[in-house]
Amino acid sequence: MGRCVLIGVFDSGVGGLSVVKQLLKAFNSDIIYLGDTARLPYGTKSKETVLKYSIQNAEFLMRFNVDAIVVACNTASSVAIDVLKKKFNLPVFGVIEPAAKLAAKFEKVCVIGTTSTIQSNAYPKKIAKYNKGCRVTQRACPLFVPLVEEGWIYDDITYEVAKRYLYDLECDALILGCTHYPLLREIIQRVMGVGVSLIDSGEALVKGLKDFKDLFEGSGRLNCYTTDSEEKFAKLGSMFLGKQFNGVKLVDLG
Amino acid sequence: MGRCVLIGVFDSGVGGLSVVKQLLKAFNSDIIYLGDTARLPYGTKSKETVLKYSIQNAEFLMRFNVDAIVVACNTASSVAIDVLKKKFNLPVFGVIEPAAKLAAKFEKVCVIGTTSTIQSNAYPKKIAKYNKGCRVTQRACPLFVPLVEEGWIYDDITYEVAKRYLYDLECDALILGCTHYPLLREIIQRVMGVGVSLIDSGEALVKGLKDFKDLFEGSGRLNCYTTDSEEKFAKLGSMFLGKQFNGVKLVDLG
Repeated sequence: MGRCVLIGVFDSGVGGLSVVKQLLKAFNSDIIYLGDTARLPYGTKSKETVLKYSIQNAEFLMRFNVDAIVVACNTASSVAIDVLKKKFNLPVFGVIEPAAKLAAKFEKVCVIGTTSTIQSNAYPKKIAKYNKGCRVTQRACPLFVPLVEEGWIYDDITYEVAKRYLYDLECDALILGCTHYPLLREIIQRVMGVGVSLIDSGEALVKGLKDFKDLFEGSGRLNCYTTDSEEKFAKLGSMFLGKQFNGVKLVDLG
Repeated sequence: MGRCVLIGVFDSGVGGLSVVKQLLKAFNSDIIYLGDTARLPYGTKSKETVLKYSIQNAEFLMRFNVDAIVVACNTASSVAIDVLKKKFNLPVFGVIEPAAKLAAKFEKVCVIGTTSTIQSNAYPKKIAKYNKGCRVTQRACPLFVPLVEEGWIYDDITYEVAKRYLYDLECDALILGCTHYPLLREIIQRVMGVGVSLIDSGEALVKGLKDFKDLFEGSGRLNCYTTDSEEKFAKLGSMFLGKQFNGVKLVDLG
């Protein structure tokens, strides 16, 4: 891997900005972010469709001569990462492998994510690569994303939904396999109990990249592109980036 | 309006099949249905994006030489119906006007729908056309669609969500302004009370078309197209069509 000044990051929507937040904190790279809000969510769609969208997103980022691509979306990482690595001649980082590597240190692991992420079995396969003896259970939680987008983060209803999804899961560590889920960390921890380690897939990715820290440079600039309303992107996105921002540009990938 | 043998129907997903169910029951027309599942939902997206998708959907249906187009999606009807009517030289029917016409007979009306449908103000505008004195309140209910798609139709959690959205609404009639909402009719009626008339926008559309009943003919054939997984379309779609079906074909509109 060469010097990395400009990183291209894509996600189905604004959730990946939580990964950007951590990237900006850890490194000084410049970032081009693409949120494919006109076609979100990815997590309910077929792998063929998610693969097509992921390639289009990566092709858009390539126009900026990025030095590396980060796939901040768990669903896109689950189904597209190998194809993207083969197709594009630059480093491509996804959120599955780093979280799987961390989780593999535990005996019993649960993975929660979108329907497509869970159906892909990407996490169990990667965990087995690091620890064949690790017992992995998976659970799709389709309502978590709309609940977060509704802003019901610390809500009794969200707690009831979390109980419904998670009550019977037993594990030492739980992978939050979707960029929206860290916002529900408090409720999920309450349901799972304090003894369960929560693994944030975006956090794990940035932690992993720190091994290459010396390769990153830049001035910490962020440029955002969206395929739907710029205004809505900036408004919802600030929840994930942890601060207000503007200058979002509209792009048509269809 | 001339003889109508082949009707083209589109929706963002499978919800419009509840309209198809009623069309098939009322008339003997043949139907081409397009569910744009690769880009759903429409209800959270900007009017520019929904308009673009609606035009592409209608163009697809035009390839079959349909005699009329039914826009079964409330969001698409809200933002695109006038453009579609101007752009295509055939009758285009949406779900807003017939429900608005029915609702206008009441004094106090509430409209529930997706964020985009509510923001468009399509319902209040159309109701005012028929009854300027009618008092209209609107409420977006973004979680209803994912709750229906999760299958939590008669669920305590869904009831709590409905209470949260609707508890303070007072009206004589409530428009179910989204094709998914009729599946929650029981819970919504429980929250609103038995004195409130629920108006199903798809039902209202088919009722309105009955004035032209003599113009419809055909053999009641249904052909479905989807932009994402055929299998998932057939599985989820049967909930709306009220029976199993197959032979769904994949189409790429992107």
